[in-house]
Amino acid sequence: MSDPNCIFCKIIAGEIPCWKIYEDDHVLAYLDIGPLSEGHCLIIPKKHYVTIDQMPTDEAAACMAVVPKLSKAVIAATGAAGWNVLQNNHQVAGQAVDHVHIHIIPRNDGDGLGFRWPAGELDAETAKSLQSKIAEQLG
Amino acid sequence: MSDPNCIFCKIIAGEIPCWKIYEDDHVLAYLDIGPLSEGHCLIIPKKHYVTIDQMPTDEAAACMAVVPKLSKAVIAATGAAGWNVLQNNHQVAGQAVDHVHIHIIPRNDGDGLGFRWPAGELDAETAKSLQSKIAEQLG
Repeated sequence: MSDPNCIFCKIIAGEIPCWKIYEDDHVLAYLDIGPLSEGHCLIIPKKHYVTIDQMPTDEAAACMAVVPKLSKAVIAATGAAGWNVLQNNHQVAGQAVDHVHIHIIPRNDGDGLGFRWPAGELDAETAKSLQSKIAEQLG
Repeated sequence: MSDPNCIFCKIIAGEIPCWKIYEDDHVLAYLDIGPLSEGHCLIIPKKHYVTIDQMPTDEAAACMAVVPKLSKAVIAATGAAGWNVLQNNHQVAGQAVDHVHIHIIPRNDGDGLGFRWPAGELDAETAKSLQSKIAEQLG
């Protein structure tokens, strides 16, 4: 459950240093070395999964279980006005390292960050079709 | 654990309709009516929390436990090339409804979406100071 070529697996193994802020049996959290804002940090599972769909339910849950307390600590430490919790899957979605990682990104007014949001409208026909296709996949 | 003025609590109560795609004891998931891409959907806890730092560990974990299977189903149903999992806290971070919600946003080449990413660099002094402040908050 470790990939010898994965930079995050090397961090977990202690072969590459990190600015650790939290650790338990399932996850490690550390400061992002290419931060978008002060306090930007990452939560990663200790086992190697490339994307979140590969994770067993309990492993995904263990990663998210850390988010409330870590968010609270990071926001208190930085005094930020808000934050994004972001997890990217595949390069097309902005994933830069092929080991699941959850970003906590502190936010402040006028920081120029955020997700681009050109919202569309959902029509009933598309919705019904999607609902049915997703239901089929969920089995 | 329900806010009578919250639109998502009304959806959970069945007072406002939604395009439901998944439900269990803890969470409800449905199609976003202002989608960024085909298959854009939301996972919400059935109890009312404004931001994720307010959530008990197990409730946050229960929301994330759904993400692997729902991601897999939505991506298979839409044929998207990747996806973002996004949760915004406070208006400054793009939160539009004051009830915790996790977005699954399918992604494709050239869709113009994604998080803005003007990455900085983390210097050792800032890192040490943050590490210490966060540790103090975590107690």
